[in-house]
Amino acid sequence: MTGQLTIAGLGPGDAALVTPEVSAALAEATDVLGYTPYVARVPAREGLRLHPSDNRQELARAGEALRLAAEGRSVVMVSSGDPGVFAMAAAVFEALEAAPDLQELSIRVLPGVTAMLAAAARAGAPLGHDFCAINLSDNLKPWSVIEKRLRLAAEADFAIAIYNPRSASRPEGFARALEVLKEAGCGERTIIFAHAVTTPKERIETALLRDARPEMADMATLVIVGNSATRRVGRWVYAPRRAS
Amino acid sequence: MTGQLTIAGLGPGDAALVTPEVSAALAEATDVLGYTPYVARVPAREGLRLHPSDNRQELARAGEALRLAAEGRSVVMVSSGDPGVFAMAAAVFEALEAAPDLQELSIRVLPGVTAMLAAAARAGAPLGHDFCAINLSDNLKPWSVIEKRLRLAAEADFAIAIYNPRSASRPEGFARALEVLKEAGCGERTIIFAHAVTTPKERIETALLRDARPEMADMATLVIVGNSATRRVGRWVYAPRRAS
Repeated sequence: MTGQLTIAGLGPGDAALVTPEVSAALAEATDVLGYTPYVARVPAREGLRLHPSDNRQELARAGEALRLAAEGRSVVMVSSGDPGVFAMAAAVFEALEAAPDLQELSIRVLPGVTAMLAAAARAGAPLGHDFCAINLSDNLKPWSVIEKRLRLAAEADFAIAIYNPRSASRPEGFARALEVLKEAGCGERTIIFAHAVTTPKERIETALLRDARPEMADMATLVIVGNSATRRVGRWVYAPRRAS
Repeated sequence: MTGQLTIAGLGPGDAALVTPEVSAALAEATDVLGYTPYVARVPAREGLRLHPSDNRQELARAGEALRLAAEGRSVVMVSSGDPGVFAMAAAVFEALEAAPDLQELSIRVLPGVTAMLAAAARAGAPLGHDFCAINLSDNLKPWSVIEKRLRLAAEADFAIAIYNPRSASRPEGFARALEVLKEAGCGERTIIFAHAVTTPKERIETALLRDARPEMADMATLVIVGNSATRRVGRWVYAPRRAS
């Protein structure tokens, strides 16, 4: 087996946020796999086979990537943002665990700028103090676990990055998440809605959590709830370094 | 005022992880400020003034950057990793809040690959499920707050990225953090020590938390504690997508 599988993050959208390491991997690839809109971000060229696939096909896509690499191909699996944050890397290792004969395969993971970092940068520095990241879309996770994590995150006074607030599989979840956070005493916290961050459709909205409406988030929104000490200066939002 | 202040992340160490956006900002800068080892990573060139400064000079450095930008210079403040994660962006906005006459200044924040993403990529996908990031070094934060956050993070079953586990200001903190996590029932969890990740001195070590010793971390180590469902496959560590 001389093939290789590279699991790479394309960053949040802007080509200027793709690392040179990832660009080099794409330039050497024979095959690129991923969710259709992410594969569409890879420049086409002669000799490069693109394998776009649908959302919710993560395990099948991971298995196919392993199989192609085992055949000797130079395969890149692309994710948006960072491949290790609510993205394809975990699915690949899950598929690898189920394929004992492939465990000597050459695999590498190339990090990228995940959405919460780009969203935070546009808003200021809301993740400048301790924070957590919670995925609301994962339909493999019971809702009770999400509620528990939101309550504990509020109690810990973490800033909270919420990925996939309004997924197709759980459209009502975000309204409930806002209720849970209000019940947990976060009504006066600042909340940031970063829509399509770093793309031409980018839109950043900031509000108090008690005034936030579920429809302020859609499937392309990354939400950040500030911690209790988060402050505003002009158009900027930041977590002071001495936040308690 | 025609100057500009750009707060930029250089990534964890490898030049191939500096985004093209940040490289372009550095190419246009007249002045670069930052902690000495980070400024040393910026290529020198004619017409570029480098202003290295010591650790713990964050607010003074931020004030100087604002002042230079207000004089019309094109200033880049560099951080390692991402500037918004336990780095200079929060200090700049703190300094900005104290300088009302500068609040119309042109400021932008350029995200970068923060250390936990690079460390996770080397280990596999330990941040593939919900997670949190806690800074042990911040001497502006009471230790009781850190302990509380560690306990709540364990209860929430977050994977936990620990920044600055052994800072000069609080060398005993990491030993205590390991004790707290053991008391919170995390002894059987996987712990990853990522030393000087993406540099020539990189070293990745993995253990069970109950076997971890404080001296496995130093000032250049990023620590990741897996969640309770974290698995190993070959040399890889990953958080399954269906982790509870």
